[in-house]
Amino acid sequence: MAPRAGRFITLEGIDGAGKTTAASYLAERLGQEGVEVVATREPGGTPLAEAIRGLLTGTEGEAPTEDTEALLMFAARAQHLDRVIRPALQAGRWVLCDRFTDATYAYQGGGRGMPAERIRALEHWVHGGFQPDRTLLFELPAEEGLRRRAGAGSRADRFEEEGAAFLRGVQDAYRQRAEAEPERFRSIDAGRPWPEVAGTLDTWLARELAQWRAGT
Amino acid sequence: MAPRAGRFITLEGIDGAGKTTAASYLAERLGQEGVEVVATREPGGTPLAEAIRGLLTGTEGEAPTEDTEALLMFAARAQHLDRVIRPALQAGRWVLCDRFTDATYAYQGGGRGMPAERIRALEHWVHGGFQPDRTLLFELPAEEGLRRRAGAGSRADRFEEEGAAFLRGVQDAYRQRAEAEPERFRSIDAGRPWPEVAGTLDTWLARELAQWRAGT
Repeated sequence: MAPRAGRFITLEGIDGAGKTTAASYLAERLGQEGVEVVATREPGGTPLAEAIRGLLTGTEGEAPTEDTEALLMFAARAQHLDRVIRPALQAGRWVLCDRFTDATYAYQGGGRGMPAERIRALEHWVHGGFQPDRTLLFELPAEEGLRRRAGAGSRADRFEEEGAAFLRGVQDAYRQRAEAEPERFRSIDAGRPWPEVAGTLDTWLARELAQWRAGT
Repeated sequence: MAPRAGRFITLEGIDGAGKTTAASYLAERLGQEGVEVVATREPGGTPLAEAIRGLLTGTEGEAPTEDTEALLMFAARAQHLDRVIRPALQAGRWVLCDRFTDATYAYQGGGRGMPAERIRALEHWVHGGFQPDRTLLFELPAEEGLRRRAGAGSRADRFEEEGAAFLRGVQDAYRQRAEAEPERFRSIDAGRPWPEVAGTLDTWLARELAQWRAGT
């Protein structure tokens, strides 16, 4: 008997919103529940896709044009879907993915101004109607995200070097997508202290697990 | 006064058919005629596009899926068009390009079996109706191409490792495209001795130059 298909959960939001912490927490909680988990990220998730990420995020060398950037994002995504995400879901595992196609609409669309229909054409080409089962959107004011990153003292990559206006464009696009698909998206107020965020995640996860186990 | 736009000439055919020799010869002849020339190649032609070429042709590491391969090809092409090809043409230069989108139809389509409509969708996304002014197709039996390459003793890349059946698929696709666009394509019998091929190129070039200078 084929195992029940896993769940594809994506985590979205600007840097500093706590996606990485949340993904680790969810992976640990799912493990305690006996669910096999693959934690991964985009762009990346396979050796080739990580090499593409290097071309996208590097601050040295020639910067990609907007078109090149979008094509590279989807090239990495095609590889990741075929080699990691789809096989894991078919094997019954849950996939926790730090960013996916919503991030392309947010960063390349809302941030850089690429028309949504151009992104939609590539999305359709690469993954047709395939979508995450659930998307957690970590929302945080752009200024707070910039402050958190500066405090962490990490080196900025090419995307992180963009300023607050760019990040507000990113957040507006995320928000619009969340409003258009309320069944798939769950908005998380990431400005609260971590224990409160974790409590929200616990409640959300318990319900998702119950639905999954019931086969709905 | 803006200079007269240059001409975009692509050279197509399987490896071993003599594209590189022909491109050098044409660049030299055009230089003698006082025409500024940019000689370039795909995938590649800019530092970023050459890095993408490295991901595509490398025989080590993770091989791209067919979809990833096509997306990477067009990512490199988008960069090359924006940074090299279009600016050169606008400045009145002739661009001699070793392979372009016809090669994607030939290799990814005819060779690997990707449906032409999937390639056409990416072509449209990246360069709309923009096409080479002229395309020289160097035709050679697949077996002869393999023999010439083996004789040259060069190390095979991931595409060159494909066998004769793959190369016949590539050639059939090239042939079909040439037959569908006889105005753009010029088929060159690359099995003849070089002086004969050069003579054909001379005749072709004289007519192209005369047309260009007449502004037609």
